[in-house]
Amino acid sequence: MSNVKVTTLSNGLRIAVDAMPEVESASLGIWVACGTRHESAELNGMAHMLEHMAFKGTKTRSARLIAEEIENVGGSLNAYTGREITAYHASVLKEDVGLGVEMVSDILRNSVFDPDELQRERGVILQEIGQALDTPDDLIFDQFQETALPGQPLGRPVLGTADSVETIGRDDLFAFLARHYTASNMVMSAAGRVEHDQIVELAEKHFGSVPRTPANAHIPEPINYIGGDSREIRTLEQAHLVMGCQGIGYRDPDYYATAIYSTLFGGGMSSRLFQRIREERGLVYGIHCFNAAYADGGLFGIYAGTGEDDLAELVPAVCEEFATVADTLTEQELIRARNQIKAGTLMALESSGARCEQAARHLLIHNRPIPYEEVVARIEAVDQAAVRRVALRLLKSKLTIAALGPIDDLESIEKIAARLAA
Amino acid sequence: MSNVKVTTLSNGLRIAVDAMPEVESASLGIWVACGTRHESAELNGMAHMLEHMAFKGTKTRSARLIAEEIENVGGSLNAYTGREITAYHASVLKEDVGLGVEMVSDILRNSVFDPDELQRERGVILQEIGQALDTPDDLIFDQFQETALPGQPLGRPVLGTADSVETIGRDDLFAFLARHYTASNMVMSAAGRVEHDQIVELAEKHFGSVPRTPANAHIPEPINYIGGDSREIRTLEQAHLVMGCQGIGYRDPDYYATAIYSTLFGGGMSSRLFQRIREERGLVYGIHCFNAAYADGGLFGIYAGTGEDDLAELVPAVCEEFATVADTLTEQELIRARNQIKAGTLMALESSGARCEQAARHLLIHNRPIPYEEVVARIEAVDQAAVRRVALRLLKSKLTIAALGPIDDLESIEKIAARLAA
Repeated sequence: MSNVKVTTLSNGLRIAVDAMPEVESASLGIWVACGTRHESAELNGMAHMLEHMAFKGTKTRSARLIAEEIENVGGSLNAYTGREITAYHASVLKEDVGLGVEMVSDILRNSVFDPDELQRERGVILQEIGQALDTPDDLIFDQFQETALPGQPLGRPVLGTADSVETIGRDDLFAFLARHYTASNMVMSAAGRVEHDQIVELAEKHFGSVPRTPANAHIPEPINYIGGDSREIRTLEQAHLVMGCQGIGYRDPDYYATAIYSTLFGGGMSSRLFQRIREERGLVYGIHCFNAAYADGGLFGIYAGTGEDDLAELVPAVCEEFATVADTLTEQELIRARNQIKAGTLMALESSGARCEQAARHLLIHNRPIPYEEVVARIEAVDQAAVRRVALRLLKSKLTIAALGPIDDLESIEKIAARLAA
Repeated sequence: MSNVKVTTLSNGLRIAVDAMPEVESASLGIWVACGTRHESAELNGMAHMLEHMAFKGTKTRSARLIAEEIENVGGSLNAYTGREITAYHASVLKEDVGLGVEMVSDILRNSVFDPDELQRERGVILQEIGQALDTPDDLIFDQFQETALPGQPLGRPVLGTADSVETIGRDDLFAFLARHYTASNMVMSAAGRVEHDQIVELAEKHFGSVPRTPANAHIPEPINYIGGDSREIRTLEQAHLVMGCQGIGYRDPDYYATAIYSTLFGGGMSSRLFQRIREERGLVYGIHCFNAAYADGGLFGIYAGTGEDDLAELVPAVCEEFATVADTLTEQELIRARNQIKAGTLMALESSGARCEQAARHLLIHNRPIPYEEVVARIEAVDQAAVRRVALRLLKSKLTIAALGPIDDLESIEKIAARLAA
């Protein structure tokens, strides 16, 4: 069972260690409370570009050497950028934990952002943007985010745009790094074949001199759900649709009830959306719902992809399901969703990567690790009334529609909203 | 460390059990030596449709009950169809292992293929085909497969086509099931919190009466690499390109040398393709190579996605890398690739899902589990001469090109082949 130990260095850097003595390898990394929502409009994509440039050379290592040194020992070094969190993490065998920490430290603290490398990396990111634009069931989620949260950092795409990627310069990257990659803004996490004291010692050595963050330095613009309607007609086999509304944030008292709601409404193959839309009607291959949670709020959405001719049947069917959860919820569905979340949480404990990431996220979001027993207790505490409350909160929020593909016949947002109000 | 025990039932069904007493859950399932290459052209997509229909109701369970019963206990039941293997597998907590085995057995042995369910499921599969057609970096691999292996079962898409999906009927499914889902054509595998005797007992109970397979009953049409050139102009941001050739099969003496070759040529971020094409030139976001291995041969390919304007630089650069591996290979690259494969194999041992699948595949392909120590020994035994031999085998094979997107300016296959011959 998970037993995360937390230590805070004198500069405020927090360290989470989840030892799994039974395995041969370890996952470790740095999670930074920084992402797309900390960017200006002009420099959209900066958090992501910084994450790319961290791999492009330090004072003592070329880009090639970074790749070679970690792969020489069969390890891997990876990173991702989200809207609130950026992560740099490594998977290594037990004897290479020290190298892993040192390399994560080197790319975060000693990167040089060579101008030629920067110019080439812009090209790579433009290719990444091109790939996302060519993948409808990727693109539709960015379109939804932007429509729900227009004109604000949290609504903008993680990758930025072709224009902003050209605009971001070397000095911008250094400024962003200095501002956000500070000690109390970062968490170091390690899980697997590691020991608490070993990791604390490595963290002290490699991150002990990172400057502390001024208190409340980086409170981003609060989420401001607006909602709206965005449609792009494109010649495709499928119409890709996200319909959604204001969701529920990490710190919301209804957060766990929302997890239950999402699971029973559109989580697995016994969920309402899967059973009613795919199994009973054969209208889709992929359908699910999601609650994208942030510190101060969230976005809830339902994704479906369907053929042009099936859109007219799909939309009323999905609306009917969304509109009726609160009134038709059964105790059996609630119990099943609880069991799905509890078992999923327990199974995730078998992976050092999942445990490392979970401990880091808990520290960043809740300032402490949440023990498995507490997750279970919170899930057990969700009752029908709480799920109903969530269902009604979602339903009462203003609708957002994002649609892409052969969608000429998609009915108006007013008509769809009226179906939900009925 | 992995310690797979194998037992064979009197009907020929083989059972692999890999006990991991330290975990709380288990992965289990049935792997069948049957896939797209066992289909006729007219009924292309049948293996996949059968896999879908297995979830659509048995003599005692409706489709909904199948989904609900496994998710009631927080488990999951899933399946996938490949070109040679179809798998049905469950993840469950330790106390639900019996239920998991019983449900896999029920959907494989007692499915009723209700005609109304079949008609609806055709709709779902047509949506799945539509989604694949909308995803260029999915579609391009089917296009490559079909161009390399035209007019043969192994070249056809797993999902089938809109026409074939309409053609396949209920009787076809029953006949295919009776023909291929026989005892010596299947492997039961379980890993995680399971015990050998428990799994053998469950297998005997639920699969003990499955008929034996006549010897050599289902030898499919041998792979016949032809090669060719296939181009589809489409308005996209990126040109998606796979260039490749005859690859190396599972049972080929060069199989492990090919794994080393693929890793150092286009496996990780220190690989040649990643370093030279992405890092040094900034021409792509995604680039990698693959060796799709089958029982009697394989397909080797290099995937890259790039903007229309960069295609003219990309193609010669990739050709140069592909053409020069044999002459420029270093010992350091070989050592690194060995370490990557060894560490990856060791890390996979930490996942019950990976261990369950690996044991099943080893039994189907090699008729015995391959111990970790043997994988390591085989990887250690690969020397520079072996990797060079693979590099030259691949290079001497006739070229196949598949290209999709804004590819007007893509040079002729003759010109590309000449670059590789130079």
